[in-house]
Amino acid sequence: MAALDSVLNDIDKDLDNALERLFAFLRIPSISTDQAYAPHCREAAAWLAADLTALGFETSVEETSLHPVVLAHKPKPGAPHVLFYGHYDVQPVDPLDLWETPPFEPRIATDAKGEKTIVARGASDDKGQVMTFVEACRAHLAMNAELPCAVTILIEGAEENGSQGLPEWVARNKDRLAADVVLVCDTSMWNPTTPAITSSLRGLAYFEVEVTCADRDLHSGFFGGAARNPIHVLSRILADLHDDDGKVTLPGFYDGVRERPPEVLEQWRGLDFTPETFLGPIGLSEPAGERGRLLIELVQSRPACDVNGIIGGYTGEGTKTVIAGKASAKVSFRLVDDQDPQKLAETFEAFVRARIPADCSVNVICYKGSRAISLPFDMPELETARAALQDEWGVPAVTVGAGGSIPIVGDFKRLLDRNTLLIGFGLDDDRIHSPNEKYDLRSFHKGTRSWARILSALGARRGH
Amino acid sequence: MAALDSVLNDIDKDLDNALERLFAFLRIPSISTDQAYAPHCREAAAWLAADLTALGFETSVEETSLHPVVLAHKPKPGAPHVLFYGHYDVQPVDPLDLWETPPFEPRIATDAKGEKTIVARGASDDKGQVMTFVEACRAHLAMNAELPCAVTILIEGAEENGSQGLPEWVARNKDRLAADVVLVCDTSMWNPTTPAITSSLRGLAYFEVEVTCADRDLHSGFFGGAARNPIHVLSRILADLHDDDGKVTLPGFYDGVRERPPEVLEQWRGLDFTPETFLGPIGLSEPAGERGRLLIELVQSRPACDVNGIIGGYTGEGTKTVIAGKASAKVSFRLVDDQDPQKLAETFEAFVRARIPADCSVNVICYKGSRAISLPFDMPELETARAALQDEWGVPAVTVGAGGSIPIVGDFKRLLDRNTLLIGFGLDDDRIHSPNEKYDLRSFHKGTRSWARILSALGARRGH
Repeated sequence: MAALDSVLNDIDKDLDNALERLFAFLRIPSISTDQAYAPHCREAAAWLAADLTALGFETSVEETSLHPVVLAHKPKPGAPHVLFYGHYDVQPVDPLDLWETPPFEPRIATDAKGEKTIVARGASDDKGQVMTFVEACRAHLAMNAELPCAVTILIEGAEENGSQGLPEWVARNKDRLAADVVLVCDTSMWNPTTPAITSSLRGLAYFEVEVTCADRDLHSGFFGGAARNPIHVLSRILADLHDDDGKVTLPGFYDGVRERPPEVLEQWRGLDFTPETFLGPIGLSEPAGERGRLLIELVQSRPACDVNGIIGGYTGEGTKTVIAGKASAKVSFRLVDDQDPQKLAETFEAFVRARIPADCSVNVICYKGSRAISLPFDMPELETARAALQDEWGVPAVTVGAGGSIPIVGDFKRLLDRNTLLIGFGLDDDRIHSPNEKYDLRSFHKGTRSWARILSALGARRGH
Repeated sequence: MAALDSVLNDIDKDLDNALERLFAFLRIPSISTDQAYAPHCREAAAWLAADLTALGFETSVEETSLHPVVLAHKPKPGAPHVLFYGHYDVQPVDPLDLWETPPFEPRIATDAKGEKTIVARGASDDKGQVMTFVEACRAHLAMNAELPCAVTILIEGAEENGSQGLPEWVARNKDRLAADVVLVCDTSMWNPTTPAITSSLRGLAYFEVEVTCADRDLHSGFFGGAARNPIHVLSRILADLHDDDGKVTLPGFYDGVRERPPEVLEQWRGLDFTPETFLGPIGLSEPAGERGRLLIELVQSRPACDVNGIIGGYTGEGTKTVIAGKASAKVSFRLVDDQDPQKLAETFEAFVRARIPADCSVNVICYKGSRAISLPFDMPELETARAALQDEWGVPAVTVGAGGSIPIVGDFKRLLDRNTLLIGFGLDDDRIHSPNEKYDLRSFHKGTRSWARILSALGARRGH
């Protein structure tokens, strides 16, 4: 095999072409949570399948109960076998008017720090990250006509919709997903110059609450003071979810949450993770949430509850003297350790129902939940990948917990009995899920180089 | 002059033509609160001005700071002089998908009780009601070539937007509005067979509260538990507005609110105004608001606070794990007796600001407020109108308070020193401000006949 250097050189030389390919992928508005975009999800799957087929992967697009998955194999008998997972679907783009340029017209911009960025919905989450792995494979194949490891690639289309349909598909296709380790590129670096391997992920439970009072909208002059207002009912429920110390008030909510050992807390205190560094860039200065906790605890090892959306009554310009018939909110919980999303669903619904007046009604929708996960610190692939990352970035990779959820990682453990290395090149200011999402050009370029190195290093591991 | 009977006969015979005219008026989407509809407001003013000109009124369309007013005069030296006020603007139509037919395509429907209704936005509030007066004038003019009284008609286009610009216009044009009494047709009957004269109106104070936390939308996985959520801040503010007994908690809110005398409460207890009759038709059974009060007190003589709209974060289909940067709500108060909207604005803003975290901000918009008004029971025109209404409906007209606000009525008193007779033919189930607004055909027909009688009776009053 050609030296790794030639692969890395090829990545450097081919960067403009790699960007062109990524831009084509980013132009497809594959929003998974809105059925109106289902054809575009299918289009994104087809685009990716065509690209992997061209690279010589045995590729298929396979149906699930929601959007299709792309499955691609490049066997290598006797070599270590990796399963790479990512997603081609993206978040909705609203509020659209806050985008500086259209979300599905990718462009290169230069940010305030002079850093070149790729701006588009999905640039970071997760199309840009997925393509770092694909481009690393492309360079190995261009230089050597083969990959250092056997590689299976599974790219789904419903991650932003709770990976609907994927666990069932994985359960039906276990044999086709055999591998030694799972690789995922859907997480962040520690900071713009320090790579990170994510060793734990918070779980998620997501609900929608729709309160109905009168069977129609009412004139607040006629009925104000006499008819129940669903926005009042809903506000009371939402306000009741936290106490004055920022703790979630649901009975038993903290069951299964463990305190971190003193040595971990001590280590965390030494990190430069302060309100200034973490909240300053988004215009805030005071941690919300549970009082008396380290900021890093709040986002990595403590559960949290957020109202993700609320709507009711008149929300247009000016005034309307209306009492709405209905009001609704989306409420989600980030879970840690052994918190049980199923138990939480029951507690939450009871909490809500206890606050609904007798002549009103409520519909509680429970979206798919996921438990928190954590990886074993003694995974052999962890040290291999850490060394490869250090070779690329010049500094040791940090092992961190992450606040967000990637539900399928728990399913890989449960269904395939395989651990997952979460290595990503996103940055905290990537505005994923927000207007003007971006991915640093450096993340894309050095991310690709990082995967080329990790594949080489994993392929060279003894014992296979 | 021809007998009143011939005028009433003419109204009966001309009903189909009157409906055609009303339908043309209803087809104009004159939504005042949304600037996108400003040209349609102007179109509605022009339509009305053309109709009144054709009737022989000296008519002009005059600018205000928002939408124009229509002013029309039909002098009659030596006769009593009435000023009729109404509005050609209508409420917004959302949620549009709840309309059974398009809101600006008026039609005749038959309701569950077999009653014929006119269905369209503005059918009741206020185009249908305005046209009862115009059609009464038309019939008098057709039969007699003159009206029983001198008539000035003032129709504004911003009533649903707090009558923005109208008080200033009235102040500048006092001389052109000289009259003995003001007539308004923008209120309801007591029930479908009993007419009502409204003797008091609640005032209104209307606010919008926009809370800003982070300077962008955030991923709730990364930031949940650490970043302040504006929907939480807003929910807390809204929940805090009422105590467990349904009382508004703003300091000094009940200053200036008077208890009704025991004999009034006794009379109210005798009315058939119960949760079954008032709340049953809208699908509710339990009065909200202050505990321990009669239901009729709650809507007529007690102040109230309602959140009229709320929005923040993701409100589309499915899920999005976002912490919004902003959230906003519209909050209004119905005022009674001597409650001061200006003082309330200060109290409300202080109440809101006290609940904003140090690193967040809030913008409180204060829309135009109006004090409550009540009319003197010894107005001579009151008895004249009551007798005319009884002639038409066969039962005595009830004198009632109304929950809604017509801000300009207070301005007529203040600026013109004239009292207002509020006589309307709407019904509580007209769904004004809601989808599928309707006006009973009987309200339109007998309302027109009622005004014909009232004009005759007022014209015949001695002392002019």
